[in-house]
Amino acid sequence: MNFDTRTPIIFYFDFISPYAYFGSTQIEALAARHGRSVDWRPTLIGITVLKIMGMKPLTQTPIKSDYLRHDAPRMAAAYGVPFRFHGLKDINSLAAARAFLWIKATDSALATRFAHRIFRRLWVESSDITSVDDVCHEAAALGVNGSALAEAITSAGGKQALNDAVQIAIADGAFGVPFFIADGEPIWGGDRLWMVNRWLRYHSWSKPDDNHDRD
Amino acid sequence: MNFDTRTPIIFYFDFISPYAYFGSTQIEALAARHGRSVDWRPTLIGITVLKIMGMKPLTQTPIKSDYLRHDAPRMAAAYGVPFRFHGLKDINSLAAARAFLWIKATDSALATRFAHRIFRRLWVESSDITSVDDVCHEAAALGVNGSALAEAITSAGGKQALNDAVQIAIADGAFGVPFFIADGEPIWGGDRLWMVNRWLRYHSWSKPDDNHDRD
Repeated sequence: MNFDTRTPIIFYFDFISPYAYFGSTQIEALAARHGRSVDWRPTLIGITVLKIMGMKPLTQTPIKSDYLRHDAPRMAAAYGVPFRFHGLKDINSLAAARAFLWIKATDSALATRFAHRIFRRLWVESSDITSVDDVCHEAAALGVNGSALAEAITSAGGKQALNDAVQIAIADGAFGVPFFIADGEPIWGGDRLWMVNRWLRYHSWSKPDDNHDRD
Repeated sequence: MNFDTRTPIIFYFDFISPYAYFGSTQIEALAARHGRSVDWRPTLIGITVLKIMGMKPLTQTPIKSDYLRHDAPRMAAAYGVPFRFHGLKDINSLAAARAFLWIKATDSALATRFAHRIFRRLWVESSDITSVDDVCHEAAALGVNGSALAEAITSAGGKQALNDAVQIAIADGAFGVPFFIADGEPIWGGDRLWMVNRWLRYHSWSKPDDNHDRD
């Protein structure tokens, strides 16, 4: 099979997920190794996981929440990236996701830089990302016009753009995050980047020298 | 740190999970590479996932169920093992798990062989594993006394042994399956055998030559 190296890797994320943060720290370098770009796409797991799938937040799920608290720091260590549980309550990513889409509409590279800042703000610096002020603060550091952005975040158009983005994510089967689509193959999980890598390399899951459980 | 190579890798499983089946096909060889044995321990995700965690069965979870149907066959291909969705309804693993525990009480190696047969029966041959007859049929092929086993499965003691086993699994934090404990480190998922491998090798998550997302 031949695949077009101009096809980007789709990366669905939600800033409130630590595993999406881990994915965000790795996907650009992984894509670059295959000569690919990354199409960053925000979604809302509050819609997909909680409302559509009817699940509880991970942090409120018995037994599994303890595992998450153990797992996230070791995944950060495995990826070699800074990480800290923020301890913030009632955070959401609505304003940040709307801001991302507004920036992306005119400059996708700038939007990616903005996304990295938001992820870092929440998962490294333990600062809130919920308010319009929080979001505009990070955007301003990149030279984005704060008042225009604030207006976009709170506008009907800004809200609709995010709603549309979530519907696209659902249509693509992205229930959780991070969720990657590599040459048509859907891959879920911050611990499954090896699958993105393998698919881009072989476009097959079976290969003779199989060793994906080994270092 | 020094670790005792006599410490087995704990492997929590439930026959009804395709990912536990995948784990069952890999864990013995992985353990052997590190000079380890495997302590096979049945649990019931109908208790941990559905009752305690309050989740729906994966197959009834919107969006995610579609992903599961796509993911399981490719994981089988990646592991190079036979696999087929069985299409059976209302199956459960109570009798098979009780039988496993009864056999294990006197012969753990035989119990492991029995477990492989049950997994294969369900996930390769698409045959039911729910009834006492189903279970005794597989055990008989290994020379196990069928009437004694049938009595054990339906006895109060047989039921209590499984209840106790599930409580131990919960105490160990095993919410889903497969769930491994390698030298104290809890690792969940049929796609995370690389973590079992890495932990046994390095007993650390951070290492300079990190490459776990690469083949």
